[in-house]
Amino acid sequence: MNFHSDHVVGAHPRIMEAVVAANRGAVPSYGNDPVSAALVEDLSVLFGREVHVFMTPTGTAANALSLAGLTPRWGSIYAHTEAHVELDECAAPEFYTGGAKLALVPGDHGRMDLDLLEARLQAAPRGFVHAAQPAVITLTQATEAGTVYSPDQVRRAGAIAAAQGMRLHMDGARFANACVHLGVAPAEITWDAGVDILSFGSAKNGTMGAEAVVVFDPQLAEAMAYLRKRAGLLIPKMRFLAAQFRAYLEGDLWLALAGHANAMATRLAHGLQSLPGVSLAHPVEANELFVDLPEAAVVSLEAAGAGFYRWADPEPGMVRVRLVTSWATDPAEVDRFLDHASIAAAAARHGEGRR
Amino acid sequence: MNFHSDHVVGAHPRIMEAVVAANRGAVPSYGNDPVSAALVEDLSVLFGREVHVFMTPTGTAANALSLAGLTPRWGSIYAHTEAHVELDECAAPEFYTGGAKLALVPGDHGRMDLDLLEARLQAAPRGFVHAAQPAVITLTQATEAGTVYSPDQVRRAGAIAAAQGMRLHMDGARFANACVHLGVAPAEITWDAGVDILSFGSAKNGTMGAEAVVVFDPQLAEAMAYLRKRAGLLIPKMRFLAAQFRAYLEGDLWLALAGHANAMATRLAHGLQSLPGVSLAHPVEANELFVDLPEAAVVSLEAAGAGFYRWADPEPGMVRVRLVTSWATDPAEVDRFLDHASIAAAAARHGEGRR
Amino acid sequence: MNFHSDHVVGAHPRIMEAVVAANRGAVPSYGNDPVSAALVEDLSVLFGREVHVFMTPTGTAANALSLAGLTPRWGSIYAHTEAHVELDECAAPEFYTGGAKLALVPGDHGRMDLDLLEARLQAAPRGFVHAAQPAVITLTQATEAGTVYSPDQVRRAGAIAAAQGMRLHMDGARFANACVHLGVAPAEITWDAGVDILSFGSAKNGTMGAEAVVVFDPQLAEAMAYLRKRAGLLIPKMRFLAAQFRAYLEGDLWLALAGHANAMATRLAHGLQSLPGVSLAHPVEANELFVDLPEAAVVSLEAAGAGFYRWADPEPGMVRVRLVTSWATDPAEVDRFLDHASIAAAAARHGEGRR
Amino acid sequence: MNFHSDHVVGAHPRIMEAVVAANRGAVPSYGNDPVSAALVEDLSVLFGREVHVFMTPTGTAANALSLAGLTPRWGSIYAHTEAHVELDECAAPEFYTGGAKLALVPGDHGRMDLDLLEARLQAAPRGFVHAAQPAVITLTQATEAGTVYSPDQVRRAGAIAAAQGMRLHMDGARFANACVHLGVAPAEITWDAGVDILSFGSAKNGTMGAEAVVVFDPQLAEAMAYLRKRAGLLIPKMRFLAAQFRAYLEGDLWLALAGHANAMATRLAHGLQSLPGVSLAHPVEANELFVDLPEAAVVSLEAAGAGFYRWADPEPGMVRVRLVTSWATDPAEVDRFLDHASIAAAAARHGEGRR
Repeated sequence: MNFHSDHVVGAHPRIMEAVVAANRGAVPSYGNDPVSAALVEDLSVLFGREVHVFMTPTGTAANALSLAGLTPRWGSIYAHTEAHVELDECAAPEFYTGGAKLALVPGDHGRMDLDLLEARLQAAPRGFVHAAQPAVITLTQATEAGTVYSPDQVRRAGAIAAAQGMRLHMDGARFANACVHLGVAPAEITWDAGVDILSFGSAKNGTMGAEAVVVFDPQLAEAMAYLRKRAGLLIPKMRFLAAQFRAYLEGDLWLALAGHANAMATRLAHGLQSLPGVSLAHPVEANELFVDLPEAAVVSLEAAGAGFYRWADPEPGMVRVRLVTSWATDPAEVDRFLDHASIAAAAARHGEGRR
Repeated sequence: MNFHSDHVVGAHPRIMEAVVAANRGAVPSYGNDPVSAALVEDLSVLFGREVHVFMTPTGTAANALSLAGLTPRWGSIYAHTEAHVELDECAAPEFYTGGAKLALVPGDHGRMDLDLLEARLQAAPRGFVHAAQPAVITLTQATEAGTVYSPDQVRRAGAIAAAQGMRLHMDGARFANACVHLGVAPAEITWDAGVDILSFGSAKNGTMGAEAVVVFDPQLAEAMAYLRKRAGLLIPKMRFLAAQFRAYLEGDLWLALAGHANAMATRLAHGLQSLPGVSLAHPVEANELFVDLPEAAVVSLEAAGAGFYRWADPEPGMVRVRLVTSWATDPAEVDRFLDHASIAAAAARHGEGRR
Repeated sequence: MNFHSDHVVGAHPRIMEAVVAANRGAVPSYGNDPVSAALVEDLSVLFGREVHVFMTPTGTAANALSLAGLTPRWGSIYAHTEAHVELDECAAPEFYTGGAKLALVPGDHGRMDLDLLEARLQAAPRGFVHAAQPAVITLTQATEAGTVYSPDQVRRAGAIAAAQGMRLHMDGARFANACVHLGVAPAEITWDAGVDILSFGSAKNGTMGAEAVVVFDPQLAEAMAYLRKRAGLLIPKMRFLAAQFRAYLEGDLWLALAGHANAMATRLAHGLQSLPGVSLAHPVEANELFVDLPEAAVVSLEAAGAGFYRWADPEPGMVRVRLVTSWATDPAEVDRFLDHASIAAAAARHGEGRR
Repeated sequence: MNFHSDHVVGAHPRIMEAVVAANRGAVPSYGNDPVSAALVEDLSVLFGREVHVFMTPTGTAANALSLAGLTPRWGSIYAHTEAHVELDECAAPEFYTGGAKLALVPGDHGRMDLDLLEARLQAAPRGFVHAAQPAVITLTQATEAGTVYSPDQVRRAGAIAAAQGMRLHMDGARFANACVHLGVAPAEITWDAGVDILSFGSAKNGTMGAEAVVVFDPQLAEAMAYLRKRAGLLIPKMRFLAAQFRAYLEGDLWLALAGHANAMATRLAHGLQSLPGVSLAHPVEANELFVDLPEAAVVSLEAAGAGFYRWADPEPGMVRVRLVTSWATDPAEVDRFLDHASIAAAAARHGEGRR
């Protein structure tokens, strides 16, 4: 019953097999090997256009590198108030960009309020040398709240960026979960909607660690190559990252794995929302759930060995917990968790009634 | 006959087995897993004292992160003129340190001239606010010229650093090769000689990619943790890096692999230096050779399919090439190369005679 | 009727005389001159303790340098949502600090809500390597809204900083106006209340440009000296800045000038708030007013040649303007402005009534 | 007899008068005032083409800002081994550029050896992602050794830069002294020779402090505006800097002042080089002399109250001193120094003879 994170599980067997298979003979290093070349082809096919690819070892590196390629040092990067780039990257974007600023835009359920974004950008003092200049919009797809931007919403963000002379970045640490939920081709919610660079994650969905920075605008590629190297991110034995990502894409494994993770999240959601005193803080559209429970129920679940994070305190006596499912989540574990939760919620209600 | 680099070969089977073995179950991410904890223990035992460990995906990241932990932003980092941090890291040290300077000190055979270093430091304007202040000495062990600092030399560098209130870093991308050559315990050429942080490489010697930043001064550790994260270097599924490094150390595999690589380099050196018109530019103490050959011989070897880099033009008609052996180098390939070289050198001499 | 900014007027005659007087003979450069030494004495006397002083040419430089001296590169700097460091310095703090983050805290009338600040800091994930760590609180005194923190409020901010292991910075671009309003000794709202570094401005209050970074914690001074130099802020002919600041302090000129500016602002406020349809957005405690007027009245005032900035649109048909008075503001101009405003406000009301 | 630096003297009376004259009325701040506009006109006329101007308060700021506008973050800046940007700016170029590298090129008498520069650039690994990429050449005019690049030499540097796709910067902290020595129009040794940005100093030659960054390539101007602001260098009351520089240019005051300083240096040189045991280390082409004297003579001069810096120890018993003349140097002081030096040199020779 480990729902701590989609990072706690290892790699899918097919990924691991690909790594083992890549361990053969001598090949050029630093991405000049055949596997890396084939991966660029694979991704170009997947996205329906030529792309440039920069493999990185972490999602934070992928995001920070992408933003460094998109903003001048005096730029503002518009992100959701609870975006990973704001809350979970220890100021890596500020470091990589040489001191650009994040400008935070709230919005329900982890999605930036695009009306508010547009209004703020229209009010931003362009050409006013005293203020950092709007440079990048970054969307997280799926969001940190376990929701997904619709293709229309991404297109709108792309249109806003274009109208403002800005760039659009997508943090796709859980891009697969979003694609599965939407049932769209990757192009539709990336370059075709205006995305310039995608951080295409895989570690949360079945690899050991191989995050592809996919660059759709070829003019950005040269600078990205130097930015990557000087950040210490150019992996010598690149074939091992490329092999993971190729296996991840092959036969749509990435979609199958994310489909499973999403289904497990939905199963949890259905089970939980029927319990008394339990509610979901956000729609469940990917593989993360944010669930408000009586504290007594949370304590009881923890005592039963369930693994998850306490996230917030929505009101006295209640705790919001985060549950994350993964490609490796066992339905039996989901059901076991739901059984525990059902008993715990009933007991919590009962205890409350007696007070 | 691929002597391009020790990065071109893959991972040793025991390393790969360890990775596969680590792919089991759910464990905490970001280094809070049992394998990572065990690695810290292993390294503490190996070095004979408690150490702090920060795994990184590349040697450039390991060096740049180490330097960022050791220098103020207005510091000077004293390095050999041909150090990796100067020539091969695309200004990563400058980026990571927030703009510190490299101060270059020449020296024969890839080793900093320690007399010259000391003289320069004594002449440096300490407390003079107009000049960057001497902050770090960084030694490469083994050096970029395939040589090794003796324990006395490292100790002297440590003493100079201590006398100057500076820190000592060691770029140990080929630390194993140096240890094997010297036949010393790792402690003797690191913390016991004054080294504050060691970039302990393994990718060049048999792993897929797992460079350990080993911090001997516990006061540096807290800052290093934040510096690593904001550089995007904190690997979520750390167990896979830790597993590689544990297997690398287990049963002294690291020394066995480096011992083989060094032996292959020595075998090449012995064979080459007896050839007419061929000479070694540097003593061969690790797994790199720099060989001066007639250009005709170089062309001939290239035509025969031998892989290596042309490094410099020591004099008209001559080419200096770099040959690197590895844990995977086949003695038969060495001998095949020597056979080709023998014929090529003789032919080159003959051709020269006819002119 | 120029109320655009307190930067639009020149220097007070006594300041200029001091500059002219300092232009005599040869003296050591870079602050090693007698005038600079005397200024440190003057400021030490003024604050009632030994201080270190770093003169800078702009307020942005003073703030950014101060913050660079107070935060590690992975720190968060807590500032008011509308602080100068956030809105008007083009990401200079992010640049100078090497990529630290600003964390914004709202609050009425330009003052950070200290309850909210405390709550956020208590909720901040300390020691959590994924998040920038709370490092500095920065207060603007007087605020960007023309208000002033009381001594109790500053002390509370100091206590919060101390409890959190953070540092306290004060942006005193209008420090004089705050001191006059409060009628307190400078020590009471700075080091005695927990302030580590004060950006003590003077350009807005009568000098040509000389902002003193006053460091109360001697342990910070050495690093500040290098940070200043590498930022290109170490002025060779420092005597001219020091002479300005000495004259600024001498005979409490600084307080007299700020007293005049504040009085002019109060005179404007009294005159404006009695007009129909006109209201003040914030209490007037220093030398800035934010006034909500009917747009017709604003247009009319602009047509009459009054200089000010349109600041916001508080509601349809209304405009919020900013008026800034200075040491040089002529009471006759204030009265002329009030006469125009009175007519314009009446006309606007009349126009409205006819609609 | 103060020959410490051309920074130790104050401002020329005409400069000071201009500052006093500029202290009149209210004008827009941040360079939007009439004096600043007129200065841009003046400089455009002086250089015979439209220029963009960014006033800065120090030479270090001017250089670092210029370089930040010219290099990508992964660039190398080629400078003389003893350039101010290398030795005297505490890594400001590294800070401002976000971590670019300086690549040092030696050369006699403070001038980069342009043959060596060209050879190094031809050997530099272009497009090799592991190495910082050649981006900028920076010349110091006049040099730190008191010499001057000829127009041919500047043109050659410009041609090298153009051939290599690099930019050319000129550190003109003593630009006036070079122009006087060469007797050329400013255009001839700047934009017409390939210079993209000139740091046009004035503080060493008669102002209080006003260094003009003169940008010849209009495409660079927009970025420079933001880089300046975020470095805290945008002076609010810009009129005072602009007024100084206008007066500096008016009636060719700048050339007259530099002409005097150069003449005083020549007078010193003539006097000194005829003394026994005294020699000049470099040709005297501007306002700096580097003189080798017996140590006893140096001690004697110091005892007589002469002010200068000991610079180096060229051989046992000898000291190299630096003497700097300025616009304010009194010929009588020069002659007094020469009288002392004559006696001291004779005495030193005599003392030596007795040993």
